[in-house]
Amino acid sequence: MLINGHSGDSVAVLDRGLQYGDGVFETIAFIHGKAPLWDRHMARLSAGCMALALPRQDADRLAHEARQLLHSDDALSGRHVVKIIITRGVHGSAYFPREGDATRILYIRDWPQRAQQPGFEGIVLHCCQTRLATGSPLAGLKTLNRLEQVIAAAEIGKAGFQDGLLCDADGFMVEALMSNLFWLKQGVLYTPLLDRCGVSGVMRAEVIEQAEHFGMRVREVRETPEMLMSAQAMFLSNALGLTAVREFSGRRMDVDAVPLKIRNAIQQLLS
Amino acid sequence: MLINGHSGDSVAVLDRGLQYGDGVFETIAFIHGKAPLWDRHMARLSAGCMALALPRQDADRLAHEARQLLHSDDALSGRHVVKIIITRGVHGSAYFPREGDATRILYIRDWPQRAQQPGFEGIVLHCCQTRLATGSPLAGLKTLNRLEQVIAAAEIGKAGFQDGLLCDADGFMVEALMSNLFWLKQGVLYTPLLDRCGVSGVMRAEVIEQAEHFGMRVREVRETPEMLMSAQAMFLSNALGLTAVREFSGRRMDVDAVPLKIRNAIQQLLS
Repeated sequence: MLINGHSGDSVAVLDRGLQYGDGVFETIAFIHGKAPLWDRHMARLSAGCMALALPRQDADRLAHEARQLLHSDDALSGRHVVKIIITRGVHGSAYFPREGDATRILYIRDWPQRAQQPGFEGIVLHCCQTRLATGSPLAGLKTLNRLEQVIAAAEIGKAGFQDGLLCDADGFMVEALMSNLFWLKQGVLYTPLLDRCGVSGVMRAEVIEQAEHFGMRVREVRETPEMLMSAQAMFLSNALGLTAVREFSGRRMDVDAVPLKIRNAIQQLLS
Repeated sequence: MLINGHSGDSVAVLDRGLQYGDGVFETIAFIHGKAPLWDRHMARLSAGCMALALPRQDADRLAHEARQLLHSDDALSGRHVVKIIITRGVHGSAYFPREGDATRILYIRDWPQRAQQPGFEGIVLHCCQTRLATGSPLAGLKTLNRLEQVIAAAEIGKAGFQDGLLCDADGFMVEALMSNLFWLKQGVLYTPLLDRCGVSGVMRAEVIEQAEHFGMRVREVRETPEMLMSAQAMFLSNALGLTAVREFSGRRMDVDAVPLKIRNAIQQLLS
């Protein structure tokens, strides 16, 4: 683990990352030492830092430090996950932020087990009771304020599911617990709008771009889960890949109806 | 600073307090070694731990540790602030929480300077553009997810104000940056409902109880800032005291119209 470029594994209690969740993070797939979605991660990290007025991060330095970690962990082959956390450090007084150096944390996490990233066997998706607050100034960003996800995860775990669909307080679909949501209906690919809450996933952007590249129509919509009852297929996307949904709310979904071109393109990207 | 009963000043990067803001906190006024609102703080802490399925905290142990800190800091006289942070520690896998010992942090903070707690001279209250997301499962709780407050504080600081009124995404009043909000109109004391977002302050509960004790009518309402335009007086409450508002949105407020009985009762409580 690297903290501001030095080996370490702890942060100050007064770090605003702990005090207020005052920071952002990225969870990045490295395949044989390379991160296929690196530029998208860096763009989102920049957007997050800008929105929170955190110091701009040097992408080259982050890449160098990620590489350094992978090298010393003998992790330059195979699949690994690098997590980057940027906090405002200790700079501020109560909620009031002050300019100053960020705390920059990088470390390697194991690639999730098959149970957490089951791919195209498909999962049964829980419909969460937990709602996401809506109209957030943080909409789209991947900040350290993730308590709604923790509450939803507890609900999903207790219900015995692997993942769950999260709606906002008004009942509109937003995302899954750890991924974004896509569904297919009459040849159109749909995904929820993320302008009022939710995390704008790097793989979501990649899937949209690939779909449009293949000539598919993609629409971002504000819809309730009702709409899924007439969907042909449904899948989840996150930085580590795609996961098909084989059942939602008692309705079986056709795992094979997930567009093969998109599926193959993402598989190729991550191999 | 005490961490799980031992002297320290840092936490693991993997602590979920940092990773997700997975925890709660309290900021407690100690006057000559005693915390007048201790029971209310402990009740809210318990409610927060229960809502997040964090381990129940032993109030006696917390009181003992707070006293230990005050003693060793020679802070058993005068006014001091003890901050308590409870996180889920490292127990979980990604967002999924697991049972295990919490991380328990206590430390002493200086009592805010007069500028931050100006009392009955009154402040000019900014009307924040930053909105609070609404319909949160965390409504009322004092969790470590406080990034909306950080963004609002940056706005308030930039605009040159000391505090600001925060509305929810639908435009209804919720609270001020670091305090709850009360206003007086035709003999009735009003305060915003906190069922969809906001922090349910310990001093807010105390003010409501005192007001009712003095025979005043108190109403919790969902109203836009428009209603303040016809208010006679307005004040803010937090664990450290009351602060009158002398101006809001260009309208002068009568600082002396804040009910003297409430003002005196709180002043007495904190002396």
